[in-house]
Parts: sequence; C-alpha cells; structure tokens
Amino acid sequence: MNYFSSNFKLGILGGGQLGKMLLYNTRKFDIYTKVLDPSNEAPCKIASDEFQLGDLMNYDAVYNFGKQVDVLTIEIENVNVDALEDLEKEGVLVYPASKTLRTIQNKAKQKLFYVDNNLPTAPFTRFAYLSEIEDAITNGGLELPFVWKAAQFGYDGNGVKVVRKLADLENLPKGECIAEDLVPFKNELAVIVARSPSGDTKTYPVVEMEFHPEANQVEYVICPARISDELAKKATDVALAVSKSFEHVGLLAVEMFQTQDDEILINEVAPRPHNSGHQTIEASYTSQFEQHIRAILDLPLGRTDSKVGGVMVNLVGAEGYTGNVVYKHIEDIMNMNGVTPHIYGKKQTRPFRKMGHVTIVNEDLGEARRIAQEVKQSIKVISK
Amino acid sequence: MNYFSSNFKLGILGGGQLGKMLLYNTRKFDIYTKVLDPSNEAPCKIASDEFQLGDLMNYDAVYNFGKQVDVLTIEIENVNVDALEDLEKEGVLVYPASKTLRTIQNKAKQKLFYVDNNLPTAPFTRFAYLSEIEDAITNGGLELPFVWKAAQFGYDGNGVKVVRKLADLENLPKGECIAEDLVPFKNELAVIVARSPSGDTKTYPVVEMEFHPEANQVEYVICPARISDELAKKATDVALAVSKSFEHVGLLAVEMFQTQDDEILINEVAPRPHNSGHQTIEASYTSQFEQHIRAILDLPLGRTDSKVGGVMVNLVGAEGYTGNVVYKHIEDIMNMNGVTPHIYGKKQTRPFRKMGHVTIVNEDLGEARRIAQEVKQSIKVISK
Repeated sequence: MNYFSSNFKLGILGGGQLGKMLLYNTRKFDIYTKVLDPSNEAPCKIASDEFQLGDLMNYDAVYNFGKQVDVLTIEIENVNVDALEDLEKEGVLVYPASKTLRTIQNKAKQKLFYVDNNLPTAPFTRFAYLSEIEDAITNGGLELPFVWKAAQFGYDGNGVKVVRKLADLENLPKGECIAEDLVPFKNELAVIVARSPSGDTKTYPVVEMEFHPEANQVEYVICPARISDELAKKATDVALAVSKSFEHVGLLAVEMFQTQDDEILINEVAPRPHNSGHQTIEASYTSQFEQHIRAILDLPLGRTDSKVGGVMVNLVGAEGYTGNVVYKHIEDIMNMNGVTPHIYGKKQTRPFRKMGHVTIVNEDLGEARRIAQEVKQSIKVISK
Repeated sequence: MNYFSSNFKLGILGGGQLGKMLLYNTRKFDIYTKVLDPSNEAPCKIASDEFQLGDLMNYDAVYNFGKQVDVLTIEIENVNVDALEDLEKEGVLVYPASKTLRTIQNKAKQKLFYVDNNLPTAPFTRFAYLSEIEDAITNGGLELPFVWKAAQFGYDGNGVKVVRKLADLENLPKGECIAEDLVPFKNELAVIVARSPSGDTKTYPVVEMEFHPEANQVEYVICPARISDELAKKATDVALAVSKSFEHVGLLAVEMFQTQDDEILINEVAPRPHNSGHQTIEASYTSQFEQHIRAILDLPLGRTDSKVGGVMVNLVGAEGYTGNVVYKHIEDIMNMNGVTPHIYGKKQTRPFRKMGHVTIVNEDLGEARRIAQEVKQSIKVISK
C-alpha cells in the first residue's frame, strides 16, 4: 500500500499527548490521519487531518470511526474492544490486535497470560470482589502486606495500592481485583519492543525508572539503565518473549521489577508508545513515536540505539493547585544544558496530572541526571 | 510575557514546509499560532491553531493579520514590508525587522549593505534594467563571464544565471539586477546564527553544500563541513558580523563562498530557518526550528553543537514528471541506517520542485555521506 498518499488513512483512537507526539511523525511522513477522542480540547484536535468527537468505550463510535480508515491504532488502552474485533473481521488492520487489548485491559487476565506463557511475574490471587479479599485476610487465606490492583482501567498509578492493614482497603473500588505479592525490588526497569506485521523486531535500550512515592507515577526515566550488561540482556529477553507471546504489532512497553536477587519479574505492559520512551525523541536515532508508525505500517524499523544519554522528567500538577495551568520557571529550565520541555497543552492542572515532560540529554548520562534534578527542583506546574 | 498560555499569539507569514517544521516546535511548547498563506493546500493549514488565507504581498492582508498577534515572524522573505513597518510602529514585535527584510528582499540593496558594513562579498555592479547590462558589455564596461542576479524575489536558484555570452541574457527578466564577478570557489559554506532581542547569540557548526549543477539547488548539506578549524572560525566570524550588522533577531542563515585562496565571501543570507539547517532536526541538540522560536520569543537559546554527524539530501521533483506526486522507493531508503525522510505534503510535483528532504545521521560523517549517496540514487520523486 502507498502510505505516502492521501488515499491511505490512519486512524488513532485517543487524542491525548501520546497521539499528539505520534502526529509529529505522521506529519513528517505526510500520512493522512483521523483521530477519535471524547474531548473538544484534545491535544490532537489540531495537527490531525480529521478530528472526530466520540466516546472511545462506545461500540458504535469506535466501529463507525474504524470503518473509515485502513489501519487503526490506539494511544490509550481503554477503548471498545468488541468494535475492534468486528473491524478486524471486516478487514481493517487493527494494531494492537483486539485479542491483545482484551488481555491487557484486565490486569487479572494479563497476569494469567504471563503464567500461561511461562513469563516471569510476581505471584498473585484473583478476586471477583473486594469483599473476597477482606474474607481471605480474616480467615488467613491472604497475608499482609500485598499489592491491590483493580482488574479494570487502572491508569497512571490509579487502581494500584499497597495494602499493609485491613483499613487500607477502605474506599477502594469494590469490583474485580488482584492481590499481588509485595516484591521487594532494587529497581524498576522497562524495555520498549517494536514489532512489525512481517515479524521484524527491535528493542530500545533498557531504561531505569524512579517513581514518585505518593503519586506512584514515574518521576525520572534514565536511558540507558545503570545496570550490568548481563541484567540488561535478561530484561531485554523477557521483553522480547512477551512481545512474541502476544504476536504483537507496534510498540510494546514492558515494565519490569529487578528483584533483590536480580531476577526479572514483569509488572505490566502497554501496547503503544509509553512514558518510559519519551526520551527517545531527543536521545535515540528513532523516536518511539516514529517507530510505532513504522511498525504498524510495516515499514522498515529504525535504529533503536541512542545518540546520547537521556533522562526524562514528568511534569505533573503540583499538590494544592487546581485550575488554569501556569508553568512557573519554564524559562529557567530552558536555560539549562540540553533541556527540552514538552507541554501537552492541557488547559487545567490538578495534583499529579500529567501536564508535560522534560527531556535532558547529555554525552554524560550522570550529568544529564544531575541536570534533571535541577529541572525537577526548578519548574512548578501550578494554577493562576 | 507568558508565552506558554493561550493569551499569547505567534503569527507566521507563510504556511509552507518551513512553517510546518516550525509548528512541530510551537506544538511542543504549546504556543498558540496563527498562519497566513495564499494557498488552501498549504502544509500549515493543519497543525496551526488558526489558518488564514491571504496574499503575503498585500498590505491589508498582512497588516490585518499582524494586528491579531503579539509576535510576528516569517518563513518566506517575500512579504509586504510596508505592512510590517506599520505593525512595528504600533507595537507588534516583528522578527526579522522590516528594515532587515527590505534590505534582504532586494539583492542589490543586500550587496550594498555588505559593502557599507565592510562585510566581504564578491564585487558587483547594479543595473536598473537588463538592457543596461547589454550596453555595458558591448561598450566594454562589463566583462564576461559574470553572474546575473535579479534584484527582486529570487528563490531556490531562480533569478540567478551565469552569463558567459550575450545570448545568455535572452529571456531573462528585464528589471533591476546585478552583475556579480564569477568567483571561482572551492566550496560553498553556510553558518546559521541565532540571535535573541536581548542580544544572546549562538552559531551552528559550519556546513558544506553541494549544489545540483542544473537546478542550482542544494543537493547535499554536510554538517560539520570538512574544512580546517581555522577556516571554520573565519566563516563563523563573518556570519556573526553579518547578524550583528543587521542587529538581527531570530535565525540568520549566511551562505558563503570559500575562494581558491581560502577567503570567505558572503553569497546571500536568509533571515529565517533555512535549507542548510534541516539536518539540525536529527543531528543537533537543538533544531534550527526550535532555536528560531526560542530566539524570537527571547527565551534562552539551546545548544547548537551536534550529537552526531548529519547529511541532508533535498527531495526534488524528477525531470520529466509533472502531476500528482509519488515517492518511489521511499521504503528502501527507510531501510538504510539512520535515514529519516521528511515529506512536505505538496500534492503536485514538477521538475526540481522541493517536495521534501532526507536526513542521514551517523557517528561517522563519512558513512553518513556514503549512505546519502545511496539515498539519492534510490528514491525518485515522480508523478502517477
């Protein structure tokens, strides 16, 4: 198919910041895009060739949108999978596949998939209702502490909580969930795997993540991870095995724990460009966004190695501020060596909301990490 | 001023490929943009916050557009300067300044400016009409060969011709022009200077240009130029002197000749992002487009050094093809090491029309140059 002509149409479900960064690359290749999103203020409202308002969980909205495109991809997992399944039957190329999304959307199903495919992950128990967890604890069937995870629609750390005492269960959603062993880990790592329909596969370097303790959101992403080559290979092999098990097409971001005894356990995966790959825009030969486009269009995959060391800092809304966003001291961080802010264009800030990210690149990764700390201490996302 | 809020509006005169690449960066910083262009098919029609149709040479169109923005910049020189002058008087920040554009728009004025400011350039004579050149030749006042240049509106090699015999003057525009000594040169070089209103200045590495013999368009841009440090310093100092003489704000691309005896002579300048800086998107710490935005908004300038070696190849319409464009073998070049195509999105191709460019980056500049040759030999811009 000639993608580089306006006869071809690429559909993207979701018009948020990931979609926005995908569009830089569809624009660069002059690939025609249609975007579906429920919000009139979606970052993708401009820069897409066509923007359509619609509920991503609504069958008709997704089906009717999908019928108008040749290839359909996502920038968020929470979409109507039944519609995708029917679109696949009718010949629309849907990447990632509906089958994969169905598995990933439900954390219990996702964990069972790892078990079924002999992929390493932390031990867990599945519960249909939160109340069953309380029973299990009281009758000794489940030991504290553990990690509670909602089965459905967790995002950006919502739907995950460390439970150390019964009271921690209060105010949690009542529905399907899992209780996962609390694994003491040294490090959180991630590997992004790109795979095309023809099976061509490339992996980005292993990255290391530092999380914000309260928000449970990534605070720093460090590329490459400061780990041994042996461990890096182990993490990369696990990521490749996951991508292969899903027969995945497009990007698959695999988040992993490095345990105290250097075992690798899969935490969760995202079948799309991912926060742990934002630094690839400035640090890598091929950004994760360009790579996703290359993969789903079955174009040759680009180099995944780095030109320079990269560190990514998320810009999240400061605590205590809700309303029209102001980026305080952004000029100061732009004055720092190798610093590029990415502002997503969301009008309203609230505590811990992802409003943008900042990439710091440097020949010397340690120096990049040092500057990242300065960035973090300087810029504040507040409201007017 | 808080640029990172929708109260601020940046205006761009011209909605072509340079504007399109500027918009990647205004989007990245979430800076609100308005674009004025005469074509309904302009690449900037999407990705700008507001797109307005209008003639860039029409006083009212430019003036009324300019009144709606806080800062006004250009992506093409041929705009109505009287309107810009009035907008400046009324407090709109216009970068580059109308005074600078007036000088640059007219090649005779531009050459005189260099002379007045003791900036090195090839000797020349100014003529009000082409007929005066014929007289000068016949009565021995002007020696063949020389370079004829139209004073007004030369672009992409149009309006420039080497005159070796009287007959070469046939079919040339009749109006104001200059006759410039034909300087035998080793090399064509260019330096992009970024300067902000506060006078902060940075220069990109000297690049080396290889021209297409017939089309007189850049065929390869090689960054950094393969010249001595001494010569690089000389070229950089000349470029800085030009920027300073204009008290320029924004990017100034200075094209220069390296003569047989290693003198540097200014050929011409462009007061905007320039073809000789496209490789900065992939090769530099800060792309020329981001740098232009930083400069005109008086934000801190970014690093101008390179992460890796870069070579840029223009994608121009193949001879003998006019009509709906097809990029033949684009998949092949995307399979080459470190190759990124940029497709501008023009629907129609014609011989030598700039349809896009390809950047090749590599740790080894020689390898990048070798791959660039393969790219050039592989991809063909033809019509259906």
